[in-house]
Amino acid sequence: MNWFSSTEQQQLLKTLERESEKLHFTERRHFLKNALVMAGSGALALHGGQALAGNQNLPPNVPQWTGKLGDGVLTNPYGQPSKYENQTIRRTVPWLTADAISSISMTPLHSLKGIITPNGLVFERYHAGVPTINPDEHRLIIHGLVDRPLIFTMDDLRRFPSVSEIKFLECPANGGMEWKGPQMEALQFTHGMISCCEWSGVRLSTLLDEAGVKPQGKWILAEGADGAAMARSIPIEKALDDTIVVYAQNGEALRPEQGYPLRLVNPGWEGNTSIKWLRRLEVGDKPWHMREETSKYTDLMPDGRAQQFSFVQECNSVITSPSPELPFKGGKGWYEIEGLAWSGRGKIKAVDISFDGGINWQQAPLKGLVLSKCLTRFSTMINWHGDPMLLQSRAVDETGYVQPTLKQLRAQRGGNSIYHKNAIHTWKVNANGSVQNVQLA
Amino acid sequence: MNWFSSTEQQQLLKTLERESEKLHFTERRHFLKNALVMAGSGALALHGGQALAGNQNLPPNVPQWTGKLGDGVLTNPYGQPSKYENQTIRRTVPWLTADAISSISMTPLHSLKGIITPNGLVFERYHAGVPTINPDEHRLIIHGLVDRPLIFTMDDLRRFPSVSEIKFLECPANGGMEWKGPQMEALQFTHGMISCCEWSGVRLSTLLDEAGVKPQGKWILAEGADGAAMARSIPIEKALDDTIVVYAQNGEALRPEQGYPLRLVNPGWEGNTSIKWLRRLEVGDKPWHMREETSKYTDLMPDGRAQQFSFVQECNSVITSPSPELPFKGGKGWYEIEGLAWSGRGKIKAVDISFDGGINWQQAPLKGLVLSKCLTRFSTMINWHGDPMLLQSRAVDETGYVQPTLKQLRAQRGGNSIYHKNAIHTWKVNANGSVQNVQLA
Repeated sequence: MNWFSSTEQQQLLKTLERESEKLHFTERRHFLKNALVMAGSGALALHGGQALAGNQNLPPNVPQWTGKLGDGVLTNPYGQPSKYENQTIRRTVPWLTADAISSISMTPLHSLKGIITPNGLVFERYHAGVPTINPDEHRLIIHGLVDRPLIFTMDDLRRFPSVSEIKFLECPANGGMEWKGPQMEALQFTHGMISCCEWSGVRLSTLLDEAGVKPQGKWILAEGADGAAMARSIPIEKALDDTIVVYAQNGEALRPEQGYPLRLVNPGWEGNTSIKWLRRLEVGDKPWHMREETSKYTDLMPDGRAQQFSFVQECNSVITSPSPELPFKGGKGWYEIEGLAWSGRGKIKAVDISFDGGINWQQAPLKGLVLSKCLTRFSTMINWHGDPMLLQSRAVDETGYVQPTLKQLRAQRGGNSIYHKNAIHTWKVNANGSVQNVQLA
Repeated sequence: MNWFSSTEQQQLLKTLERESEKLHFTERRHFLKNALVMAGSGALALHGGQALAGNQNLPPNVPQWTGKLGDGVLTNPYGQPSKYENQTIRRTVPWLTADAISSISMTPLHSLKGIITPNGLVFERYHAGVPTINPDEHRLIIHGLVDRPLIFTMDDLRRFPSVSEIKFLECPANGGMEWKGPQMEALQFTHGMISCCEWSGVRLSTLLDEAGVKPQGKWILAEGADGAAMARSIPIEKALDDTIVVYAQNGEALRPEQGYPLRLVNPGWEGNTSIKWLRRLEVGDKPWHMREETSKYTDLMPDGRAQQFSFVQECNSVITSPSPELPFKGGKGWYEIEGLAWSGRGKIKAVDISFDGGINWQQAPLKGLVLSKCLTRFSTMINWHGDPMLLQSRAVDETGYVQPTLKQLRAQRGGNSIYHKNAIHTWKVNANGSVQNVQLA
């Protein structure tokens, strides 16, 4: 395990201070004045860059594939990634679970850009495997403390007014393997239980309005049609707020492992409350205390009591580049430091970056869309001179909540936790550009 | 061909006027007061809704798949759609082109929700097939009227500051088969040459800034590494504005048919200017007049002259539901009328809907994200009483440009056009709920 002592951290800080004039942060323009040498030299051997320098009108050698005809349209009527991208896949940790039908696979965050997770790479988590559901036979029922119990076909649901929203979904166990120390030498395993899609469907409030919730209706039970009959109790306030009954992700029908043909999405909440293969919504006056909200998905506190219904995924962030899978492989020079931030309570307000393990901080600009309960990108450019760094990011959301240190989180939650580890994460960048997962002692 | 005469239109208008009190537009809440009967009756036969009505605490019969264990994680390390969605694919029109390597496949817009097109369904268009490019061997060169000619590997490009933006890409031939009358009985074929993704890469201005464009540099030639060496001339003003050198779409690497590993995206412009498999950018002082900007992608005007460099995809819209592929199949009652609007000049400001072929209009609310040069959704609910309708949508963009009628467009452009048909489109909804592609005479 890569514990990093405070003595080591102080030594690193001194190195960085000596070199501080080298670690520049500049405007976007004119940051890569050495790009010609960097880019040109790497390509000389392959493309005759010498001639290029002598005659600016000559293009480089024509590559072999320009001399050939390619594949026709509809070679893949439903497209596939390039064969050169066959390592961009979901992965699991073999020792983590006993069986693949009650397990998890994780999103390769290091391979992704922007905020959308493509459907083929959205993380998986289920409790009795993925059922194969015929959408024509699927039904959603709403019953319990309602004026008019209702049962819907998929066609029925598609007649209701639809909404489409880009929201992250995160398993509360994301990062859970790291509670007791740095174990996973990969971003995909430290943070890969999160994905972000454009979800389309009907607001649950619209359907509940049709059913007519009785005044004593205070909770909803959502139940899946999978073999686990996975079920969670959800307060009526959330159900009437932003919960969506979803049938599409990133434009197309839900993927089987994402609940095809129907699921809940509770924006900003524990992924497991967004019940997949949704078949039943019961309105009641109190929670049901189902298996997955008692034996699982509770937080064991230092005093031995379990905290139940900790729904919200609190503000979190991680640097995605560099990362163990994306080291600084070009030696010294300019790199983009990039990462993701998110909060289950709303929008990201700001992200700070530290290069010395949290002693000094500076703000990293957010870029692109900044949406509520959605992945948000931050980035900054650095001119790296080969010094080791302890890279951290710290996100703040619009409620003012500041992402805590692991020490702060442990002080509050003790050593028994599995879920809701949203602590500041540390990557150690070594002099050779490799990146390690470390924790500060 | 489905020409619809003005006499027929007047007759239809009278019907609608008589029935006008039945065509309601209401707030989102309480619009489906007959939902119980509608939804419940459809499901009675399958799920024992009778018992349901008698005992509100009983869920419907447990489906067969709840009694079984499903597939484990990583059954598809890179996921696939459900087998029940195997008709949600790109399609081509067999008679349209002579060979699949110089053809087009179209996006099934009727199957999509929201604004993101999933990567497997993004429309295809190429001129000599899809090359299979090894990204390690791919290079981008910038040369011509620059201070420092540059050549980049993919790794080089990924060190530059990246941007991610959701933008539509549209072939200027979208709808081109409809210039001479309504021919295609499917939304996929009348409007399916458009898709919308989150594109990630480096601003072209960033790279040009590194190279240093000489004062006399006024145009850029962008050339692909495909067998066609597809090339277009682009004014320097666009290149320095919002053009992106793109390596990722919807988070993951570009798909092969979208230019893997590198392409241009010129937001809002003719798709063919967003050169795929990008290998060369030459800065010059005038356009090059390449094959695909002389023999193709010019607009033959009424006087016989060809208009060149009509880059911008003007404001356009279409109703996606109902459409020929999505008829009103549930009989009378409430339906969501939904559609897409877009403009190559910026954001959509408003969309109007007509039910009588353009005599009367009412505004349809925009919903979800409204972004510049991006697909935008509009929708309204109607309580359909079985009357035939002539459904139209008319978009207005933030510049004030109003989508024209086909008559207006023909008056300006004559009868020789192939490209840039952004006229108001008409669907005829028949009394049986089926939907036809018609044009008003």
